[in-house]
Amino acid sequence: MFLNRLENVYKIMESEGLSQTIVSDKNALFYLYGKWFSTGERMIALLLRKDLTPILVLNDLFSFSDKDTKVVYYNDKESGPDKLLPYLSHHKALGIDKFFPSRFLIKLMDLHAASAFKTCMAIDYSRYIKDSEEQKLMIESSHINDLCMEDFKKALRYGVSEKELQNEFYEIYKKHGIDRVSFTPIVAFKATAADPHHEPDDETILAPGDMVLFDVGGVYKDYCSDMTRVFFTAEPTAFQREIYNLVRRANEEAIKHIKPGVALKDIDKIARDIIAEAGYGEYFNHRLGHFIGIEDHDFGDVSLSSDIIAKPGMIFSIEPGIYIKDKIGVRIEDLVMVTKTGVKVLNEYPKDIQVLDLK
Amino acid sequence: MFLNRLENVYKIMESEGLSQTIVSDKNALFYLYGKWFSTGERMIALLLRKDLTPILVLNDLFSFSDKDTKVVYYNDKESGPDKLLPYLSHHKALGIDKFFPSRFLIKLMDLHAASAFKTCMAIDYSRYIKDSEEQKLMIESSHINDLCMEDFKKALRYGVSEKELQNEFYEIYKKHGIDRVSFTPIVAFKATAADPHHEPDDETILAPGDMVLFDVGGVYKDYCSDMTRVFFTAEPTAFQREIYNLVRRANEEAIKHIKPGVALKDIDKIARDIIAEAGYGEYFNHRLGHFIGIEDHDFGDVSLSSDIIAKPGMIFSIEPGIYIKDKIGVRIEDLVMVTKTGVKVLNEYPKDIQVLDLK
Repeated sequence: MFLNRLENVYKIMESEGLSQTIVSDKNALFYLYGKWFSTGERMIALLLRKDLTPILVLNDLFSFSDKDTKVVYYNDKESGPDKLLPYLSHHKALGIDKFFPSRFLIKLMDLHAASAFKTCMAIDYSRYIKDSEEQKLMIESSHINDLCMEDFKKALRYGVSEKELQNEFYEIYKKHGIDRVSFTPIVAFKATAADPHHEPDDETILAPGDMVLFDVGGVYKDYCSDMTRVFFTAEPTAFQREIYNLVRRANEEAIKHIKPGVALKDIDKIARDIIAEAGYGEYFNHRLGHFIGIEDHDFGDVSLSSDIIAKPGMIFSIEPGIYIKDKIGVRIEDLVMVTKTGVKVLNEYPKDIQVLDLK
Repeated sequence: MFLNRLENVYKIMESEGLSQTIVSDKNALFYLYGKWFSTGERMIALLLRKDLTPILVLNDLFSFSDKDTKVVYYNDKESGPDKLLPYLSHHKALGIDKFFPSRFLIKLMDLHAASAFKTCMAIDYSRYIKDSEEQKLMIESSHINDLCMEDFKKALRYGVSEKELQNEFYEIYKKHGIDRVSFTPIVAFKATAADPHHEPDDETILAPGDMVLFDVGGVYKDYCSDMTRVFFTAEPTAFQREIYNLVRRANEEAIKHIKPGVALKDIDKIARDIIAEAGYGEYFNHRLGHFIGIEDHDFGDVSLSSDIIAKPGMIFSIEPGIYIKDKIGVRIEDLVMVTKTGVKVLNEYPKDIQVLDLK
């Protein structure tokens, strides 16, 4: 168990007035143990109480041992929530992992296991700030993503379909030692890029003059990368150039202003204002960025409604975009890390306009 | 929307005394719509009330339309649970999808959205029985798995590691048109098979005399297969033969007794008794089987504590096993479907002892 991370979680629980909480999300458990649990539909619950050794309630089909944890097993004939009962303070509130399946929470409520049940975000808040080990992995993960992006670009040729190219991306990641993607790679030709969540299809075929959008990320030693770039197959039109440069400026200006103490909602506003002042505000319809780490979308965002203040070690995406239906879609995305004095951009892949000479 | 499935869900809700329920699990939504939703950490909730058109509350980053559904959007500045409120009967109990994330349930409770909150299994119960369209897909899915099993066997050679072979399985599935596996394929050589959830490793290398266990399944048109077979690389010892034939008899006797009206716990008992009477009861430490369909593990099991009665259209696994640590692991698994008069085994791959002549 990463005891430094556990200590941090206890501190946050205390500041939230919680003396006991249940952790069940496999990503949260990975954060604490550096190990993946996969218990399917069966309950897994780690009870954190500063006055007790952490207690992991686990189905006995799985085995686990850790010197800092007491493991309590139940079998398929027993109920997981029942096994938690002896270790809970019934007259105190119980924190609940945000993704704890409702069926187990309802069972705990029926058992009057605690005086109140509150969503506990202590692990999510702790995960906001990457420790030095995590920072190293995130930097390397994005470095590999940079290398892959260059190979993705080189795989482009006329006549290929989005879906076909997407399939090749998996092979390219594998060649670079990446077995798992952060999310299904987005490959968009022409105006399909105007849908920020476009699913690559067999029908959209690359032709001369097309713009190309790649939104891609791989998982390196369990830490995610995520980057978006746009390429051109012909000299951009004045309109394409305007949109591209606008998005790029929003990306770069937002990044320039990141440093400890800055409110992330203000960073969102910088990018949003640049796009809005140019008259395209309505076409930038999502948050500027999201936290990332063990998950592609760690909890926390860079948006107008975010109440997060930048602190050293935070890592998130900066990804402004302009999406005009049936016309154009441009997004430029980097991962950035807040440093003690400012910001480090984890993606070094260039953002200059690249006009490709394809066959 | 599959209106016949919806009707069935309403019927089950009624029998459980629920007039309103929330569905959020992506597999449950796939069951109703034949479409995958992937909203990440953002809330998705389908409210089912027989007196209203189904209401889907969805983040406006995603778009969806269906003639039988009213879609209500919220944006990243709004709260999903708030949007549900106007459509709920606050003085009645509300059914909750078993996997609905606790944070949204706790929010609904804080809003006093209903008089009580109960885990609702109506969709899971409806999914117990596959309709004719689903049955066709499940039969074809297992048929392809049979073909792949033969190719997996042919890929065996001395010197290969479990992990290496596992990687090749993905390619073999692809060759058979299967892009997605039901679960990470289990490849176990020697005594590693004594762990029913063994993770293939780089260190375990196939050598003459080894036993081999493959537990594999692919996803065909969104429906899962799942089968386990054991192969021999040399004439089995008397002990290996005893264990293998015992597991096989448990598998076949259990299957033979499946027909409408039979309690699934009695089917488990038939297999368990055979193994126990031979003195190996303690080494069969898991349930006999699980339901399967859109998920590799659909809700519902074949175990001593199951209260499910076999009905035509149910599909589940029958997978007895004997696991003796550091010594041997054998499991033989088929998918079976309850028919009007008895049972149809979906896997036709032979269960005779196969001694392979490898190089």
